[in-house]
Formats: sequence, structure tokens, C-alpha cells
Amino acid sequence: MPKIDPKILKGTRDMLPLNMFKRNFVMDKIRSVFEKFGYDQIETPILNPAETILGKYGEEGDRLTYSFKDKGDKHLALPYDLTVPFARFVATNWRELPMPFKRYQIQRVWRAEKPQKGRLREFYQCDIDIIGTKSLLVEAEVAKTIVEVFKAIDLPDIVIKFNSRRLINSVLSNLNVLEDKKIEIIRTIDKLEKIGPEKVETILKDAGIKNAKEILQALKPGEKNIKTLENLSDYDTKEIKELLEYTKNLGIDEKYLQFDPSLARGLDYYTGIIFEVVDSKGEYGSLCGGGRYDNLCGLFSDQEFSGMGVALGFERIMLILEQLDAFKNIKSKSKALVTLFDESSIADSLKLYSDLLDKDINCEVYFEPAKLDKQFKYANKKKIPYVLIQGPDEKKKGEITVKNMESGKQESMSLDKLGEYFK
Amino acid sequence: MPKIDPKILKGTRDMLPLNMFKRNFVMDKIRSVFEKFGYDQIETPILNPAETILGKYGEEGDRLTYSFKDKGDKHLALPYDLTVPFARFVATNWRELPMPFKRYQIQRVWRAEKPQKGRLREFYQCDIDIIGTKSLLVEAEVAKTIVEVFKAIDLPDIVIKFNSRRLINSVLSNLNVLEDKKIEIIRTIDKLEKIGPEKVETILKDAGIKNAKEILQALKPGEKNIKTLENLSDYDTKEIKELLEYTKNLGIDEKYLQFDPSLARGLDYYTGIIFEVVDSKGEYGSLCGGGRYDNLCGLFSDQEFSGMGVALGFERIMLILEQLDAFKNIKSKSKALVTLFDESSIADSLKLYSDLLDKDINCEVYFEPAKLDKQFKYANKKKIPYVLIQGPDEKKKGEITVKNMESGKQESMSLDKLGEYFK
Repeated sequence: MPKIDPKILKGTRDMLPLNMFKRNFVMDKIRSVFEKFGYDQIETPILNPAETILGKYGEEGDRLTYSFKDKGDKHLALPYDLTVPFARFVATNWRELPMPFKRYQIQRVWRAEKPQKGRLREFYQCDIDIIGTKSLLVEAEVAKTIVEVFKAIDLPDIVIKFNSRRLINSVLSNLNVLEDKKIEIIRTIDKLEKIGPEKVETILKDAGIKNAKEILQALKPGEKNIKTLENLSDYDTKEIKELLEYTKNLGIDEKYLQFDPSLARGLDYYTGIIFEVVDSKGEYGSLCGGGRYDNLCGLFSDQEFSGMGVALGFERIMLILEQLDAFKNIKSKSKALVTLFDESSIADSLKLYSDLLDKDINCEVYFEPAKLDKQFKYANKKKIPYVLIQGPDEKKKGEITVKNMESGKQESMSLDKLGEYFK
Repeated sequence: MPKIDPKILKGTRDMLPLNMFKRNFVMDKIRSVFEKFGYDQIETPILNPAETILGKYGEEGDRLTYSFKDKGDKHLALPYDLTVPFARFVATNWRELPMPFKRYQIQRVWRAEKPQKGRLREFYQCDIDIIGTKSLLVEAEVAKTIVEVFKAIDLPDIVIKFNSRRLINSVLSNLNVLEDKKIEIIRTIDKLEKIGPEKVETILKDAGIKNAKEILQALKPGEKNIKTLENLSDYDTKEIKELLEYTKNLGIDEKYLQFDPSLARGLDYYTGIIFEVVDSKGEYGSLCGGGRYDNLCGLFSDQEFSGMGVALGFERIMLILEQLDAFKNIKSKSKALVTLFDESSIADSLKLYSDLLDKDINCEVYFEPAKLDKQFKYANKKKIPYVLIQGPDEKKKGEITVKNMESGKQESMSLDKLGEYFK
């Protein structure tokens, strides 16, 4: 029979053990922080009625959404992100949820993109949201969570840039920008970091905004938050001041928070505070972002839920950690490999293996009495730090030889001592 | 704007916090055991070229596989199980894998079924496999893993029924069954437990097997494994004896292992030892099953990998644990809710909350100075065991009131004592 090509779809990935191990290592730390702060995990279906996914991300979003008819002609779609499924989830289940509701969600999403470097068709998103209250304490809590997450994954050198949509709006109004031009301006300003102030000014001017320079000047951040607030003393910055006060109460070092009135974030549905997390040197782009919205479930329900949420750029974070060689000291979860010396010693080796397992030591046994070299290679490939040998010599002495695979050093000891050795 | 019905597809599920919490609780225990034994986690894509999924499960399987054309007319399919994606994975990546390779995989799979009780369209599978060696130690190791998994999830009262495909084949040959009838007979015998020996005998006779009674008699298990082996002393039972010897070496209590020569398991591709795990009272049906195969990647590659794998019935296990009320004492991960007494005490409460977080105590703060009753309700809904109150009276004394939400008892203490209280 001709063989089927074992290929995968471009833009999807096989997760091999080492990669999976690194991802779990980082993900477990992120989850621990979420759970420390009382976020509950939820999951939403992957196969969805298409009308609950399509039509919510604009034309481009619909084009990039995987949707299809099943054999019963039902139109189905895969999630494009986790926000719309969360909105649908809340519209369905709000009666059963604690309110305010803090959730985290880590799932795959799909985009029918042309795959290229850093652009995948199937990838993980990792979101937190707190809904059901308009309290600014929520924004402060999310900031605290973000700082702890990045500390936990050893990327503590971050800055949460933040701004208020309300504030941008009132600056624009004050500079006589018409209501229907505001979104366009906000979208353009959102590109400031990427294309620089000159180009943004040109685009705004081409779009008929005569006072582009003045707008950009008004929205320029100062050296420190207090200075930026001073620059905007003609405007209502109560929200900003309150948020800074709450973050101080929560013990968040001010270095983590930068009030940037030019921060825009393109999405239409933000209505209050917006966040964008970058590394303090600005090398890696956005690591996390989100904001306050007024009506999460508007598309699905008459129930109004205000909330605030951010999405962690998990795939980008993994790339950065790789780049920083953050996994160089990663070790296998297995502490030791019990080797099989020869056919006649199998029973003894299995007994040793079983004894170690009973002592709750993560370990493995090799499955064949192959040459020791081959068994050592297996340990090295799996990054198992120790191998144990119990041949006739050791048997006679009632000892086990322990070989440190990194240093190559060997020593012999009794089973009891071995148990302590690995604790 | 008319609202979109926030419904989900039948046979798919929203995982609400409590349900998710229980699932994670069980899943984490299962994963710990897998990792204790050195199984590595992998993941395979959810969107797959259709030819790597279709045509491998027979007509019925193809009918039940979700497959569709994307907008570029590429034929895609969602996984029907985790075995075929694993086979494809090994065919793609074997050069990079340690051999023997022990993997675990926990992912969703899809079946285009008519949804009904206990039959879902989207559900989790949970598989382990060890490939790359024909050693019977593998079967013993998998048995040990199974016993530890069921102990870990508090369902220790299980039996691993096992048999050998080679043995059934030689019994059938000896009873003059023609080669091309064997699979049919094995499939029929597989129904023994479900429909009883009389019906199986009738079906076999109707199919032209004259010595059906004799076959069933030969395959009947005895009271004990040693007795069953005696009954089959005319046959080659070396494999069975060796497996029993290895499991003994590994310290597996014999009560966990029942040699049942009538165990068949319907799947064609098993070639050696097969496993089926049931509860010892036989109340819940199959909890786990699998077996030895000779050529995992045959469809995809010329490389031959023999292996052994089992799939845990995770969804069924969850149903059983629910039925047994196994989650009745489940507690929130949050130890305490810091309440907000009034507007003026927010800063103090945030400070308290931050101090507790710094002491690495999982806790939450309520987001509004609402009536205490409302804040207590939130704690109850989330099963948070303690609430903390810091009003003007407490503030004066430098203390915090701790209310046990289960007993209703209150006591006051300093922050330092509180830290110890929650450790």
C-alpha cells in the first residue's frame, strides 16, 4: 500500500516533548498566579454554531475565521479569539456565575492566515477578564496580576503602559475633532510606536485633521506620570489618578506603570482604561494588552456586563524566553533511569525501580538489557540527570551505582541512602 | 439590533468554573502519575490534512469524522481519536524522539454523532503509549501506571483484565477455525460481557462456527490466574506467565490482574497483549483499555514501531467520581476574601490584600464596598472558606476579623497571626 505523507497543515505545529515541557513549565507558572488571585478557569467549545463567531470581527475577521458546513448542512466555525466565545459564555451562563466574575481561559484559536514567520493558523491564547463591576479596583487588580505573572516567568523587566479612552476622547473634543473622526484618529495614533510621530502626523493631515501636530503634542507622555498628569491638567484625569492611587495601595512599584496619553489600541469596543505591556527596553513589542469595555455580551443578551480583560501573548513570550536562553538549565521530570544490566538481573532492577517509585521518586526503567551505552544515550536524550546500575558486583555488595550524567561521576550506595539522595 | 442566540452545538459543552475545577483536580493527578513514570506530553494539531485522518477507522469512522474544505479548497479534518494523530506524529518526528518513546497526550477529539446521554461530539481523550520496543516489560510498566493512576484518583478498586491476541489465535487454530474467520470470532467474543455466552454461542453458530461451545469453554477464565493457566496448559502461555512475573517484580498486587482468555477487544490492529480495566464489581463498564500493536506507523512510514498503549476513559471516570460524590469536600483555591467595609477603608483593605499576596496566600479582594452580606454571598458562591473584615473597630485595635464561612465563627487577630493562620 502506498504510504500517506505524514505532513501537517502549514501554520500548525507538532509539540515535541522538550517544547511541550517548556510550554507547560511557563504555562503552569502563569496559571498559578491566576489562581493565586482567584481567577477561575473556564473552557468553551471549539466547534461552534457559526453565527456565534462570524460577524464580530469585521470583514477581515470573517475572512480569517475557519467556518464550514457539517454533513447535516449546519454552519459551524472555530474560535477566532477567546473574547467572543467568552461573551457568548457569559450570555449563556451568567445566572450561575459568581459576580463579579474573574475568569482565565487558555485555549487554541484559529486564523486562516497565509502562514509566515510568527504568524500561525493554530495557536494558544491566554486571557483574563473580570466582569460585572465598573470599579477601577478591577484595573488595579489586573495590573497587579500582570506584574506577578511576568515576575513568575522571569521577565520582570516590563512596563504597563496605560491610558483612558475617555481621556483621549475629551482631548480630541477639546481640539475640535468631530465625533465621527475620532475612531480613525485613535486607530492612526495606535501606530505611533510602529511608524513614528512624523508619519502619523502626515496620515492625520491627509485625512483632513488640520491640528494633527497639536493633537500629538497634547498626547505626548512626560518623563514621569506626575509630569504627564500636569501636562493634561486642563482635562479630567480623575480616573488616571484613582488608578495610580489603587495600584500604590496594592504595593505595585511605580516603575511598572507608565501613563501614556498617546496609547490608543485599535479596537473599537474599549471604553475606559486600556493597557499595553511592553518590555522596558522596548525590544519585543507588545507582550500583553487589553482594556475596559462597557457591554461584553451586547451581541448576545440584554444583560449588560462591564469588565476589563487582557490577553497575554503566550506564543511571543515563549519566543522571547527561548531567545533569552531561559530554558538552558531545564531538567527532565525523571530523576533517574534504572538500567538493566543483563537478562539475569531484570527482576532485581524492577524491584529497585518499584522501590524508588514507592518512595515517590520520579524515575524510569529501561525496557531491554541493551548495552549500557545505549541506555545512557536514552537518559541523555531525555535529560535524565542520573542513571542507576545494579550488576553482579553491586548485587554482591548490596549497593547501587549512581552515575551523574552531567559530571560523569559515579558513586555506590545502599537503597536507603539512594532514597535520601533523591529527596 | 436583534440578539444572537448564545447557544452551543449539541454534544459540546461549556466548562463552568466548578466543573473545570473538578476536571483539573482529577487531570492534574493523572498527569502527575504519568510524569512520575517518565511519560512525556505531546500535542498534535487540531486542523489536519484530511488524508492523515480519514480512511483509518473504516466507513463508520469516516462518517463520524468532521472534515471540510477550507476557502482554498484544501480538505481538512478534525481528530477522531489520538491514536492516528500519534502514529502520524511518530512517522514525522521519530528521528528526534528518544527511543523507546513514552508519551502521554490529553486533547479533545470530535465525533459527528447524534448527541445523546454519554455520547458527545466534542470530548477529551487521555492516552499513554510506549513505542520502539517489543519488550514485555512495557506491558508490565503500563499495568503499574494504570494501578497508580486509579489509586491517585481514589478509584483503587479496579481490575486489569488481560489476554493475548496470539493466544486466542492459537486456541482458535487448534480448534480448526479458519484464518479468515478469526477476526469475526474475536469481534463476537468481544461482546461476551455485554450479551452473555448464550447469545455469543448463537451468533457464532449462525456464522457457521460449529464448535462455538468448545471455543467458549476453552476461553473461559478460571477462579484464579494460576487456574486459568492450568486450563490452557496445552497452549503456549509463556507470554502470559512472563507478564505476570514482571508485574510481580514491579510490586503490583495480583488482585489487580485478571488473566481472561475470553477478552478480545474488537480492534483489528492489536497483535499481542490486550488490556481492559473495569471496576472490581463490574458496575461501570470499561474505564481504560488498549493493547500491543506491531506497526504503529504502517500507514505513514516504512519505519516499524511496535508498541503498547491504553486510553483512559476520562469523561466516564468524571461521571463515576461525580456519582460517588468524590468532590463533596472540594474547596476553592482562594483561602480568603478581603472585604471592603466602606469607601474610607479601601486603602487599608488593599494594603491587607497585598500583604497576604506577598505572604503567598491565595486570596481575593471584593471590588466594591457593597453590603457585607453581598460580599459574603460572593465568597459562598466561590466556596472561599474565610472572609476578612477590617472596619473602623478593627482598625482601631490593629486587628482583622476572620469569619469562617462554614461554621460562621468569627475571631480577631493581627496581620502576622493571620499569615500563620493561613499557612
